[in-house]
Amino acid sequence: MRAEFINPFLSATKSVIETMAFTPVEAGSPALKEGNLTFGDLTGIIGMAGTNVNGNMVISFEEQTILKIVSKMLMEEFTQVNEQIVDAVGELTNMICGGAKRDLNELGVSIRMASPVMIKGKGVEINQLTKAPIIRMPFSTEHGDFVVEANLKVED
Amino acid sequence: MRAEFINPFLSATKSVIETMAFTPVEAGSPALKEGNLTFGDLTGIIGMAGTNVNGNMVISFEEQTILKIVSKMLMEEFTQVNEQIVDAVGELTNMICGGAKRDLNELGVSIRMASPVMIKGKGVEINQLTKAPIIRMPFSTEHGDFVVEANLKVED
Repeated sequence: MRAEFINPFLSATKSVIETMAFTPVEAGSPALKEGNLTFGDLTGIIGMAGTNVNGNMVISFEEQTILKIVSKMLMEEFTQVNEQIVDAVGELTNMICGGAKRDLNELGVSIRMASPVMIKGKGVEINQLTKAPIIRMPFSTEHGDFVVEANLKVED
Repeated sequence: MRAEFINPFLSATKSVIETMAFTPVEAGSPALKEGNLTFGDLTGIIGMAGTNVNGNMVISFEEQTILKIVSKMLMEEFTQVNEQIVDAVGELTNMICGGAKRDLNELGVSIRMASPVMIKGKGVEINQLTKAPIIRMPFSTEHGDFVVEANLKVED
C-alpha cells in the first residue's frame, strides 16, 4: 500500500469516532501488520474495489471499548454485546471507509465499497489474499484502544 | 437479492470446483440463510461493489473437505491446514466470484471484486450489515459438503 494512502484512513477514523461518539481519539504510529489475529472482540471488515485497485479495511474493538463508544453514539447505556452493538460496528466500518474513500478520490484513486461484515470473537484468525502490505493503525481513547488495518493494491 | 442472481453463483461454484479439483459437485437447494454462524472450519469472504450494487460472497468448507479438494487441486497430499490451504480458499473464493461476476454482467449488473479474506475457525459468528437477504447454497462432493452464501443489494 502506498504511504500516501494511510492518511485517508487515519483521518477518517479519528473524525468518525470523534463526531459519532463525542470521544477524543489519539492516533498512534502506523506500522506493518504482523501475524493474522484480530485485535479485539468485535471486528468489522469492508471490501474496497475499483477499476485497477482492490483491498479491505478492518476495524477491531475490545468489548469494553465498543460498548462505551456505542453507548455514547446512541445515548443509551449498553453493558452487553447485542445486535445493536454488532450493527454499530458495521455502521462505523461503513462511515470510516466512506470518509477514506473521499480522500482517496482526491489522490486519484476511485474505490467502491462492499457491504460490511462483522466478526464476533477474540483473536479470530483472519488472513488476506493480497500482495499489498497490510498497514496497522492503533488508536486510543478514554474508553480503550482499537485498531484499523487497511490494504489497497493498485495495479499500475 | 433477486432470484436471477442465484444462478451465477451456483454455476460458477460448480464449474470452478469441478475444473480445479477434478471433483464432481452436486448443488442442493438454495434457501434463505438462517442464523449467523459459518458452516465450516475455513471460510472465504469477498466483497462485491458496483455503481449501484454491493454485497459479499462467503464460502465455507469443513477441514477434511478442503484438505481433499486442495490435495486434488495441487496434486499433493495435505493432511493439515497450513498457509497453502488457507491461500487456496482465497483463490477459490476469487475464482468463483469472478465466474459469477461474468454471468451477472450479462444480467446487466456490473460488479468489481475486493480481495478475499479468509477466516479460520469452526462456527465463527459472521454478521452482515445489509438489507439484502443472504442466500445459502449447499453443495456436496465425494470429499464432503460445503456452503456458498451470497447477497447483492441493487439500489433501484
